[in-house]
Amino acid sequence: MRKTDAAGAAAFLQTQDNIWILTHRNPDGDTLGGAFALLRALLTLGKTARVVCSETIPEKYAYMWAGLSDIPDFTPESVVAVDIADEKLLGEPLQARFGGQIDLCIDHHVSNTQYAKTLFLEDCAATCEMVYAVVSALGCTVTAEIADCLYTGLATDTGCFRYTNVTARTHEIAAELIRAGAHFGDINRVMFETKTGTYLKLQELVLKSLEMYFDGRCAVITITQEMFRQSGSNESECDGIASLPRKIEGVLVGVTLRERGDGTYKVSLRTYEPINASKICMALGGGGHARAAGCELKSDDLAAGKQKLLSVIETELENI
Amino acid sequence: MRKTDAAGAAAFLQTQDNIWILTHRNPDGDTLGGAFALLRALLTLGKTARVVCSETIPEKYAYMWAGLSDIPDFTPESVVAVDIADEKLLGEPLQARFGGQIDLCIDHHVSNTQYAKTLFLEDCAATCEMVYAVVSALGCTVTAEIADCLYTGLATDTGCFRYTNVTARTHEIAAELIRAGAHFGDINRVMFETKTGTYLKLQELVLKSLEMYFDGRCAVITITQEMFRQSGSNESECDGIASLPRKIEGVLVGVTLRERGDGTYKVSLRTYEPINASKICMALGGGGHARAAGCELKSDDLAAGKQKLLSVIETELENI
Repeated sequence: MRKTDAAGAAAFLQTQDNIWILTHRNPDGDTLGGAFALLRALLTLGKTARVVCSETIPEKYAYMWAGLSDIPDFTPESVVAVDIADEKLLGEPLQARFGGQIDLCIDHHVSNTQYAKTLFLEDCAATCEMVYAVVSALGCTVTAEIADCLYTGLATDTGCFRYTNVTARTHEIAAELIRAGAHFGDINRVMFETKTGTYLKLQELVLKSLEMYFDGRCAVITITQEMFRQSGSNESECDGIASLPRKIEGVLVGVTLRERGDGTYKVSLRTYEPINASKICMALGGGGHARAAGCELKSDDLAAGKQKLLSVIETELENI
Repeated sequence: MRKTDAAGAAAFLQTQDNIWILTHRNPDGDTLGGAFALLRALLTLGKTARVVCSETIPEKYAYMWAGLSDIPDFTPESVVAVDIADEKLLGEPLQARFGGQIDLCIDHHVSNTQYAKTLFLEDCAATCEMVYAVVSALGCTVTAEIADCLYTGLATDTGCFRYTNVTARTHEIAAELIRAGAHFGDINRVMFETKTGTYLKLQELVLKSLEMYFDGRCAVITITQEMFRQSGSNESECDGIASLPRKIEGVLVGVTLRERGDGTYKVSLRTYEPINASKICMALGGGGHARAAGCELKSDDLAAGKQKLLSVIETELENI
């Protein structure tokens, strides 16, 4: 494995043709934005290139490939991985085909497993920051289309410039992308603003279930199958809601009880220091990380299970 | 009324002393951030100055005045209004005292009523962008404390860089403030992540009031004094909720009706292109920006006022 920088990555790409650009499975704005920005830059250089993902790419990203014509299938001479920390994240078919064969990896995960022949790694907020540098080093104009792709990665990997991974450089690149014509308003609207009516109805029902314990240091919400029926919503809309209890001022332990189709309850625990979520969940047969862990409660004994969970949480809060 | 720019505002302030800096009532991150940044800059120049608001400033902004010592009361020789579009927004006691007496107004609302003797007006995302320019023109160092104040205004008036009022310049200033030491991670957590229990209870009640009109293109929520009583919440927690109706998928016009203590209703309109929020509110005696505007409805004729508002909105939607 050889390490490189933006200029080195660009110099390598200049010498290559028939390039496959791989994204990670469960593709997000940063892997897709970086991949399609790089694709568009390589196409302007007259290269043959394509973006490949092992899973279907959600339609909300369709602007990234708008206006690009279908390219006849071709055999890659060179393979580039964008925003992929580990070959396992390629997903099954791509991992089987390209394991050990990645020529260049552009990635911002410090946990990168260094699987590629050449690695451009930086500890920055988004891989798209690095692709911006590569596109510039390739001498390509950052068109509005490329700016849209790169802005998407910057915004989605930082909670729209909210998280502590943001640097002054992140904002500077955002400024340059906006000057290049990025449609940031539309992108932010799709990525962050839009809520479905069913989500809001579910949120209303779930908020009604909110319980506070132990001087407001523990918050519990419950999501039932009946709430899904009443709201017309479903499990896929729960992610934002599950993070809600810990956001309440003063809460150290946020608990989400989510009823599954089979009547069992999935428990998601989110904590702030010094409460260890994993320790609490292990006491109920589950496990996880220090700040996020889970376990399961049986439906036929939900009240007793919830009581046990609360008493374990109480003990941890008393031990601070 | 004389118009000026950042250099002109700074030159004026250089000649003044014993300065009162006024914020608008129902103070937000932009009016407070701009006011306290200006205060801190003027103090470093050896001026006597204070920030005055007609209402209690929420504790979450306490970092803005941290480390500043109490100043004995003094009579203002010069009065500056920050982020105040209309003298009415000073709130009762300040309006009675300073109506027609404002020496300098620094504001980004294009609907500014030009009440000040000298006006620095720019159509930008946040008044804090303009105060940044004034502080720089004063020759003051942007300390980490000043950067915290200004970053707060930038972030809170743009939904953390999400809205279309953001420009490349907004991001460039954010970059400069981060380099100056702004604690953007902490600020964003307080402003955007943390929710109080009373806020969540209020949100539940408000979601129940949601009404949809015109094929789902207009959403209306109502916040009443009774909801404040039931939830234990208050006006200061309404800002996040006011942006909610526009977030619903398919909505072009989001309306929040907020009952004031005196029974009148404050109308906040948030729109997406091509709907002009200011145009709609002007038809009801209000005003504001293209995407965010406001007006007022009388309590004794709320039903009729709401009907008129809805019919103006319907006309705009039909004209798309």
